[in-house]
Parts: sequence; C-alpha cells; structure tokens
Amino acid sequence: MKMHLDCPSCFIKQAVRTGRLLECSNTRLWQMVKGCGQVLANVNEDWSPPQNAVALYEMIARVTGKDDPFYNLKKESTRQALELYPELKERISRCSDRLEAAIRYAACGNVIDYGISSDFNILDEIDKALTTRFSLWEYSLFKKRLRQADWILYLGDNCGETVFDRLLIEELKVPVTYVVRGGPIINDVTMEDAVDAGLDKVAKLVSSGCKAPGTILEWCSDEFRALYESAPIIISKGQGNFETLSHEEREIFFIFKIKCDVVARFLDHPLNTMVFGRSPRYPNRN
Amino acid sequence: MKMHLDCPSCFIKQAVRTGRLLECSNTRLWQMVKGCGQVLANVNEDWSPPQNAVALYEMIARVTGKDDPFYNLKKESTRQALELYPELKERISRCSDRLEAAIRYAACGNVIDYGISSDFNILDEIDKALTTRFSLWEYSLFKKRLRQADWILYLGDNCGETVFDRLLIEELKVPVTYVVRGGPIINDVTMEDAVDAGLDKVAKLVSSGCKAPGTILEWCSDEFRALYESAPIIISKGQGNFETLSHEEREIFFIFKIKCDVVARFLDHPLNTMVFGRSPRYPNRN
Repeated sequence: MKMHLDCPSCFIKQAVRTGRLLECSNTRLWQMVKGCGQVLANVNEDWSPPQNAVALYEMIARVTGKDDPFYNLKKESTRQALELYPELKERISRCSDRLEAAIRYAACGNVIDYGISSDFNILDEIDKALTTRFSLWEYSLFKKRLRQADWILYLGDNCGETVFDRLLIEELKVPVTYVVRGGPIINDVTMEDAVDAGLDKVAKLVSSGCKAPGTILEWCSDEFRALYESAPIIISKGQGNFETLSHEEREIFFIFKIKCDVVARFLDHPLNTMVFGRSPRYPNRN
Repeated sequence: MKMHLDCPSCFIKQAVRTGRLLECSNTRLWQMVKGCGQVLANVNEDWSPPQNAVALYEMIARVTGKDDPFYNLKKESTRQALELYPELKERISRCSDRLEAAIRYAACGNVIDYGISSDFNILDEIDKALTTRFSLWEYSLFKKRLRQADWILYLGDNCGETVFDRLLIEELKVPVTYVVRGGPIINDVTMEDAVDAGLDKVAKLVSSGCKAPGTILEWCSDEFRALYESAPIIISKGQGNFETLSHEEREIFFIFKIKCDVVARFLDHPLNTMVFGRSPRYPNRN
C-alpha cells in the first residue's frame, strides 16, 4: 500500500500520542511536532506508510535521546501477556477446534498496543474473539495449505501480541520460523523481546534485517528474503506487515485488526474488524 | 489562544481539504502536504492557530500559483447568500425581537464555509437558529452596552456570512465600521467581497491591515488599532477572530459556532454550539 493523503495528519497524531506515552514535556512534544513536519516535508508518497514511518520513529528516538524509547513499555506488555498465558492455553485446550481458536486469539492479540490498559479487560475481549465475525476468514484454504507444508514462516508484530503468537504456533504442529524486526522500532518485537515471550522455545527466531514497523523487502537481509521466497506458508501479523506486503505476488495469510480508515477502505472491510486471509491484491486466487 | 498540540494534524487536514476543494491534482496535493510539513517544521507554538495558518495559506497560494485561490468560491458564496437576503430580511421583520433574531441569524451565518453545499438547507438551519440554545448568550449585557454606544466596530469573517452580518448591522440602529482582512486569505472577507455583499451600503468599510484568518493586533495597521482601542462596542465574527483575540483585556462580543475541539475545550462548551458573548479570559466581568 502506498501512503494515502490521510496518512500525514495521522503521523502527527502518532508522534504526539507517542510523546505523551513516553511522558515527554510540552517542549519535547513541540520538538516532535516540528521534527514530524521535517519528516513530512520529505515524505515519499510512493512508499508505504510504515516505510515513511521509519524516519518518524528515528526522529522520536532522537528527540527523546533514547535508541529504544519503548523498552520498558515492551517489557511490561510481554510480562502482562505472559501472566495470561496459562489461562489462554487452558481456554484453547477446551475448544473443539483448537487451531481455529488459536487463530482467533492471535488476531485478538493484535489489539494489544503499548500494553494492556487497566480499563481494557483482555479476557473479556478474548471471549468475544471466539464468536466474532471476521470480515475476511480464509480458514479452509489455510488448513489445506497447512496439510501440505513442512514449515511456516511467521512474521511477528508487537510485544505482548507475541505471547498470542506463541499460543498459535503451539497449535500449528509444524516447525515455525518466527521473524522479528531488525532493530527496535516503536513497540515491535525484537530478538530480545521474542525470547522474553518464550518464542525461542517453540520456533526458530530470525531477524528480518529491517528496522521498520513492517516488512519492507528491499530493506530486508538476503537471509530473510531467501526464507520469504522458499516458505511453503507465510503468516503475517499486524497492520504494518500488511501495509508493506499487500501488493506482493506470493501467498500470505494476514492476521490483524483493521485499525485505520485507509486500510479499511483498501480492503473494503469495516474499521475495527478482524482479518484472516490474503490481500485483495494477491493475484493468484486458486 | 496559543496553538494546541491537536492543531498541527488539523493543519494538514485543512491543507488537503483545501487542495481538494480547489480541485488540485494528486501531485499538487502531495506538494501541499510537503509544504505543510515545512510550515510545521517552523511552527511557533506561542502563536495562535490563525497566526501560524498565514504561512500555511501562503504555501497553498504558492503551490496553486494563485494569489487568491478562493476568488471564485468567495464570489459564489456571496451570490448564494444574497439570494437568501430578501427572505431572511422578511423573516427577521416578523420576529418580536428583531435584534435577537438578527444576532441568531448572524451566528448561523458563521456555519457557512466555502459556500452553501447543496445538501445543506440553509433556510432550515436558520429556522433552528431562532430556538437553538447558545452555550454562551450575553444578550442583556450587549443591549445595555448598545444603549450607551454611538458607534460599533464589527470584525468580519467569511464571505457569504457577510450577508448575515449586513442583516444584523441593519438592526443595530447605530453607525457601524465593518472590518475586512488586509488581503485575500482562505475565504475571508476582503474589501471587494464586502462591497459585493452590499456592506458598503450599511457600514463604513476599513481594512485591518492584517492578512490573516483572524485579527492579530501586532500585525494590524495603526489606523485599525486606533479604532480597536476607541470603539465603544466590538462585535467579532468567527472562530479565527476569537482565537486571535481570546486573551484581550478589552470587552469584545464574539459571535461564532464552535467548530473544533480545541476551542470547545478552551471555552468548556460543547462542540458545534453557538456562542454570543465575551471570552472566558476577559478579566473585567462587570
């Protein structure tokens, strides 16, 4: 997906929201607004939003003077999600179709951004996930592909959500290679965060080589690109990975919650609905 | 009012909306986004939003290659409002308190931005204005001041709305000096636009000397400032004039519709309500 004309104002809102989350002073917040102005003055409208967002989050790191401003928030998100792990594991084990339940839970995990707020009862949300109607649900096709696959490439997204990914991986019954970001960006999963979530116990961990809140193939390592091309199945978590891979010609099963109007219009699905399936731009729909 | 951290994203939305209104190509719209980025990179957070918006609309004029990009839209707004004039005049004449009705209509005129859209029945809106509860309504005080005043300074706002100002001026029964912007900015009233609306028949017309979508005293002419200081009553139309004069120590009767959350929070009034009265920051409330 290319940048949409609605994205730039959202960049500014994100910068301010992020600064507030990081408890920046008013002076710092205005520095971020001005820095964001500079980023937008040089925006590349042919790039995807996450590709342009790299400069945005580099600016935020510069203004805050921290390479990984979300470090503590990420640790806390993972810790909170790990506390839920035994209960979630138990709930999945009680479902007649454990794989379906785990996919639904993994989509629900994508709701987690910047930790679980106190007014947000994740267990209630998760119960709803079991019956929620997904606006895209290509489960039969996925099961067909799964029967033929000897391994799966799984593209990670945010911290906290990682624990839900682990639950899904445990139901896949096929070796999984789990992909983390090439470096800290927002609250996205890095190698350290994946280990924190216990993903090293259930998957082989690799870095995409790309420090962006998405998977920008031309910025990824050769090692990752080789995996990407050879993988029998790819599962991709989160909107950022969708925005950067929506026009790819290879089959990818995206799992995410539609969090903005631009993506909702692109998919022609309602905002805030869950998606499990391929991009509408994927050409080979057999 | 100073810039709020919510204003910068709104600047971008305004630039894009304005560009679309002016039927700019996609390439031009992205030029505007980048230009807006440059404006925000140099934003002055101690200034009011209209003060910072001057650079925004100068950029839009530069990108469109037009000194007065809204020229045709302004002409059309005025023409449409003039068509309503006889009917509005008649409706006011039927009211038992004609002055009150004219103030309510003048506030309603502030709803007009960029002409009267086809799906917006202004006459229906106007009927509602006669019974709408204003979130601020200092009518008794205004009438008291009016009895003692030998002239009134009236700060204009947008084209189209000007015709509603004319109807109010005709009910004031006191000489009025009507203030226009120092040059074309957005769809704000200039000298030519005021004459188009027939305001020269009911008031003395003067320029503020300031080409901004508000009244920035330090950028106004000495002539205007002398009028501002000596006027027995000031009526100020529109949110832009409010944003630039909200902290003034002299009494001003503002008439406008609250069109954004930042101003709604500042006033502690609901969004989209109408206001007639003094700023909450006006110190001398006798």
